[in-house]
Amino acid sequence: MSEASAASHPNPVVIFDALNAYINSMSLKGAIDLNLFTLIAEGATTTAGLAAHAQASERGVRILCDFLTILGFLTKSGAEYALTPVSSVFLNRHSPAYMGAASNFLLHESHIKHFGDVAAVVRKGGSVDTHGNMGPDDPVWVEFARSMVGLAGPAAQEIGKTIARPGHAIKVLDIAAGHGMFGIAIAQNNSQARIVGLDWKNVLEVALDNARNAGVADRYSTVAGSAFDAALGSDYDLVLLPNFLHHFDPPTNVGLLKKIHAAMKPGGRVATVEFVPNDDRVTPPAAAAFSMMMLASTPAGDAYTFKEFDQMFRNAGFGASTIQNLERSPEQLILTER
Amino acid sequence: MSEASAASHPNPVVIFDALNAYINSMSLKGAIDLNLFTLIAEGATTTAGLAAHAQASERGVRILCDFLTILGFLTKSGAEYALTPVSSVFLNRHSPAYMGAASNFLLHESHIKHFGDVAAVVRKGGSVDTHGNMGPDDPVWVEFARSMVGLAGPAAQEIGKTIARPGHAIKVLDIAAGHGMFGIAIAQNNSQARIVGLDWKNVLEVALDNARNAGVADRYSTVAGSAFDAALGSDYDLVLLPNFLHHFDPPTNVGLLKKIHAAMKPGGRVATVEFVPNDDRVTPPAAAAFSMMMLASTPAGDAYTFKEFDQMFRNAGFGASTIQNLERSPEQLILTER
Repeated sequence: MSEASAASHPNPVVIFDALNAYINSMSLKGAIDLNLFTLIAEGATTTAGLAAHAQASERGVRILCDFLTILGFLTKSGAEYALTPVSSVFLNRHSPAYMGAASNFLLHESHIKHFGDVAAVVRKGGSVDTHGNMGPDDPVWVEFARSMVGLAGPAAQEIGKTIARPGHAIKVLDIAAGHGMFGIAIAQNNSQARIVGLDWKNVLEVALDNARNAGVADRYSTVAGSAFDAALGSDYDLVLLPNFLHHFDPPTNVGLLKKIHAAMKPGGRVATVEFVPNDDRVTPPAAAAFSMMMLASTPAGDAYTFKEFDQMFRNAGFGASTIQNLERSPEQLILTER
Repeated sequence: MSEASAASHPNPVVIFDALNAYINSMSLKGAIDLNLFTLIAEGATTTAGLAAHAQASERGVRILCDFLTILGFLTKSGAEYALTPVSSVFLNRHSPAYMGAASNFLLHESHIKHFGDVAAVVRKGGSVDTHGNMGPDDPVWVEFARSMVGLAGPAAQEIGKTIARPGHAIKVLDIAAGHGMFGIAIAQNNSQARIVGLDWKNVLEVALDNARNAGVADRYSTVAGSAFDAALGSDYDLVLLPNFLHHFDPPTNVGLLKKIHAAMKPGGRVATVEFVPNDDRVTPPAAAAFSMMMLASTPAGDAYTFKEFDQMFRNAGFGASTIQNLERSPEQLILTER
């Protein structure tokens, strides 16, 4: 091959890198499990120091820290490692924005399993498990509630400030509350708000813990079960739907939205938090890519466009929806008038 | 938070992306398994057309193709998908540079398993399996031999042209021959070269197939077994060590190199093909990152620097080593004088 054609030839390393990307995921999780970022923040910056504190081998620590340096999560100068801005803010347990625990959910063994045979998933058009992770009391949602709280916190506060309506005694239903942070943020921003958190019973224990820690437990009650089957209660001023509709197909969602409509006061609003791709379904990347997660882990879920959400709400009897970006999340907030 | 501090705040999406990278790997493998890139090259460019030819669901194909577009392996225009230069050259089975089969090795279930608990690997300082993939007749090496042949071909030809010494009746030992392409390239570039391929018995069948296909089977013989235990033969002019020394620790390698030294003619050479990081061990990225693969999949292997290779060869009685880049591979070629 001539030099000219070699220069214009695509580089096969990009394929290697893409196929090897699972190593990046699992190695970053390993570093979080070993607390390496926090140990470096605390001053253990050499292989020997890190190995001693993490009760790990020097050889293993050296190779993993070099790998994290290649990935851009550490820097290396001589034999010393240091945090980058990203790892300092998000992977050091002393940081208020710590989100390392997210790896416990994102790389939960059930997720690993869902992506074990993507060809089979694509042939079928949904998770190869019967229910994906949508079965009753699936333990992954307890892990979700525990692990994603740090990640959800900033966006929940941002949304809480926007829609809490301080000065009004509102009744709020938080559907599939999980960690409960979205409802709790409403209660924190409106001292007259009463929150009803709905989720599997095992998950609600995490939400109740968080409500106690936030000092709003006296205004936090719960409904255990599936949103499709449980008695939701009535007269809600505000219904929160954070990260829920993406698990189901549109007819299923319309059915649920009709039930929600019936449980709300006239003039109430629904606040939906979602990954919302543009109509081309390939931008913006983080929101559009979420569709793949839904394909593999649910029977019929998807990342829906705003047009699709708007149509589902209208088909359930709701009025107009509006969408806005969030400062601290790749997700967006959709507000819908009852 | 003020707008100014929000702007300077690191973006958490980078952590999401890193933790979700395993989805990229498994989804790319799924697309290769479904032959999607080849089907697009053959003219099936819509979701419906691809689903029909791949015997898959339209929903699954749509979501996977959108995801591949986000990853940069496809482009999307309206409802039609097209190949990018990279996928056209490397992921279309009709391309002579097709390397999609590499996913069968790189994402073999044994590799997935090796990275299942990276924290445990780092604590131990090596694979959590007793032998990693270094046990006798491990079937992963048959998959390696079958899957990596397309990837190794161009580099093997490049090396063959450099070191085959046409016009000289040389005797060549190819250690851990695998697909056999490195030895076969010598035979193709020197009609008087005789090649001895050494590997596990189950792997040698793949090398012999490739030698027959290349028309050099009459000059290709084999030795079955481990390089550490087998009788290597004698009077070799050239010994090939492609991708082998990285599986072991330096003392083990020095022991093997002494055995190789004894099997060679004076004036012979060893040709080592390896991922060779710089002394900082974090550049260049593809070579340096290979260390992580060795940590998790072998008891004591590593990606060694040129200084370390040079020292191992000297400790085994060899003379000087030189290193050179390859045009068609992120690996490098080390030539060592006996």
